[in-house]
Amino acid sequence: MADALKLHEEWKGKIDTTAKCEVKTREDLATAYTPGVAKPCEVIAKDPDAAYTYTIKSNTIAVVSDGSAVLGLGNIGPLAAMPVMEGKAVLFKEFGGVNAFPICLDTQDTHEIIETVCRIAPAFGGINLEDISAPRCFEIEEELKKRLNIPIFHDDQHGTAIVVLSAIINALKIVGKEKEDCRIVVNGSGAAGIAISKLLLSYGFKHLVICDSAGIVSSASPRLNWIKKEMLKVTNLEDKSGTLADALVGADIFVGVSAPGVVTADMVKTMNKDAIILAMANPTPEIMPDIAKAAGARIVGTGRSDFPNQVNNVVAFPGIFKGALEGRAPQITEKMKLAAALAIAGLVSDEELNEDFIMPQPFDPRVADVVSEAVKCNI
Amino acid sequence: MADALKLHEEWKGKIDTTAKCEVKTREDLATAYTPGVAKPCEVIAKDPDAAYTYTIKSNTIAVVSDGSAVLGLGNIGPLAAMPVMEGKAVLFKEFGGVNAFPICLDTQDTHEIIETVCRIAPAFGGINLEDISAPRCFEIEEELKKRLNIPIFHDDQHGTAIVVLSAIINALKIVGKEKEDCRIVVNGSGAAGIAISKLLLSYGFKHLVICDSAGIVSSASPRLNWIKKEMLKVTNLEDKSGTLADALVGADIFVGVSAPGVVTADMVKTMNKDAIILAMANPTPEIMPDIAKAAGARIVGTGRSDFPNQVNNVVAFPGIFKGALEGRAPQITEKMKLAAALAIAGLVSDEELNEDFIMPQPFDPRVADVVSEAVKCNI
Repeated sequence: MADALKLHEEWKGKIDTTAKCEVKTREDLATAYTPGVAKPCEVIAKDPDAAYTYTIKSNTIAVVSDGSAVLGLGNIGPLAAMPVMEGKAVLFKEFGGVNAFPICLDTQDTHEIIETVCRIAPAFGGINLEDISAPRCFEIEEELKKRLNIPIFHDDQHGTAIVVLSAIINALKIVGKEKEDCRIVVNGSGAAGIAISKLLLSYGFKHLVICDSAGIVSSASPRLNWIKKEMLKVTNLEDKSGTLADALVGADIFVGVSAPGVVTADMVKTMNKDAIILAMANPTPEIMPDIAKAAGARIVGTGRSDFPNQVNNVVAFPGIFKGALEGRAPQITEKMKLAAALAIAGLVSDEELNEDFIMPQPFDPRVADVVSEAVKCNI
Repeated sequence: MADALKLHEEWKGKIDTTAKCEVKTREDLATAYTPGVAKPCEVIAKDPDAAYTYTIKSNTIAVVSDGSAVLGLGNIGPLAAMPVMEGKAVLFKEFGGVNAFPICLDTQDTHEIIETVCRIAPAFGGINLEDISAPRCFEIEEELKKRLNIPIFHDDQHGTAIVVLSAIINALKIVGKEKEDCRIVVNGSGAAGIAISKLLLSYGFKHLVICDSAGIVSSASPRLNWIKKEMLKVTNLEDKSGTLADALVGADIFVGVSAPGVVTADMVKTMNKDAIILAMANPTPEIMPDIAKAAGARIVGTGRSDFPNQVNNVVAFPGIFKGALEGRAPQITEKMKLAAALAIAGLVSDEELNEDFIMPQPFDPRVADVVSEAVKCNI
């Protein structure tokens, strides 16, 4: 493994802003700057929509974070979140061809974040929210969707939800179960856990239970915030209480976006035959793949590149914004997310599909284009 | 002249964000993004100063505007201001090697602008304010200087003031007058006029009168805002009233940052021998150079590239931020601005200096470096 710290020091930042036009002569200067630049300004002043023709708005997004929930590092603040946001900007550009600029906010107040993003929105064609802690992230995203007419996407929620759904779609093809019959346990009630649950329900799963660190989320749970209460209307319909171990008895699918090692071999043994396990805690999964398999799981995915079935949202977010920007989508809808998940799953051919290959590779050059097309066809 | 509108349509925005690191392999991804990226994040969380080592902060500024005073177009709003801010970002990069990103704000409220810039500041090593109308621009700049520990620079004020001072320094060498003896008239009491007046006084000029559209700014002037009142403490010490024509009688230097054609040949005739005229209204100067010369002016400069002596702030701002960022200056001081003006003037050698050549060319490759050095030597 390369020395990441040393390389970051050499890079001194992972993105550059570069000129698309030359300014080598007086005429260049008179065209790109004064007096020529006045012409597109005047056209946009009369017709705001022309900003998509004459400015970077058509292909540029902001990667916005308050640094409150960065990777597994927690609330390290906006400045320390910068390397992650720059990395994300690199991935947007390299995988999706989308210009992205990191905006790290010196506030963690929900209202101030909403206000600030609205105020800086004119230059951008979309907003990718990143590493903002739950439940504030839900309110921020919803409010920005109401106030702005450009796509808003919280990648920790929806990027993760899309790739999890892709993995499950392909895993079900192998085990031959129907979505309506499967019992799913989602462990984690943060940004990712809630969004995964919602998207799985949108796709047609019927039996889904969310667990948090106190066990099954039910009407009897301690620390029920508004979003967990909201989710109880559509999950855990029998209002069962109990531990994560209780939840897993008879389950077909486990999705972990929680903490290292919280699932044991004994728990896996109580799951249904042909169990599917997506253990995505990073860097150490909820259960290691070899242990899960030995305990009877048929398909195991993780967030890691050194095990089979890496479930990584880099196959989703670049194509999502590529498609949304190219198609001038006013927002990213549930329909687009479902289409993106199906498109990603569809990249694994029937011949390729097996227990150890349910997801396309992060570097599959087709991914961003098929996701982008799926988004555009559903605007 | 190239078709600026057509070219802007082809460019679809004049800047790109580009990756400085590769993400072509799993190892690249593990270094630039997770899990490797966690290392610089942790270092910055412990030592915020390390952001200058590991992120774009060391060489990136925001070009911030509310679109309230764009070129000669007036208050066209943030979206229509975008082509200008992108153009500025291009010039920062191409002339000074500084990464710059346009932030166009969807608010023109002074307090909200200050608040928003403070909130987005973490990612940036400096803030270049642009095309914000007076007198709000003064308050915004002052307050940001107090609240943030990165350099804040309003180019319409200080960039313009620096190049005007450079031009006057060289013009005085030709006419052989002493700064202490010169009578100066600055026509225009907006951002540029006020900043020019302040910098000329800092340099050592003693006799300076500001005019606005109502004539000489004096205690009897209508529409005296707080900044004009402030300036009356150090300008127009005799508290004269009258028209611009009255002000010019016996003046040695005229600086116009006002409106086309407001100075007539008859007015120039009343000025002192060897009069210096910088008529910088754009695109049509306060008086055309041939008319001014025929009426007795010895040296005439304008903002235009098609006349001799173009006084263009592109020779100042890229080097200012290059130096400030390289030297980690916490702010841009009066001393740095004076040093920058002297450095720019110094690029015209005694052999080159003549009535039609008082300023270095905008494309002089030495400019950004000498300005940058001047700034760094005065931190």
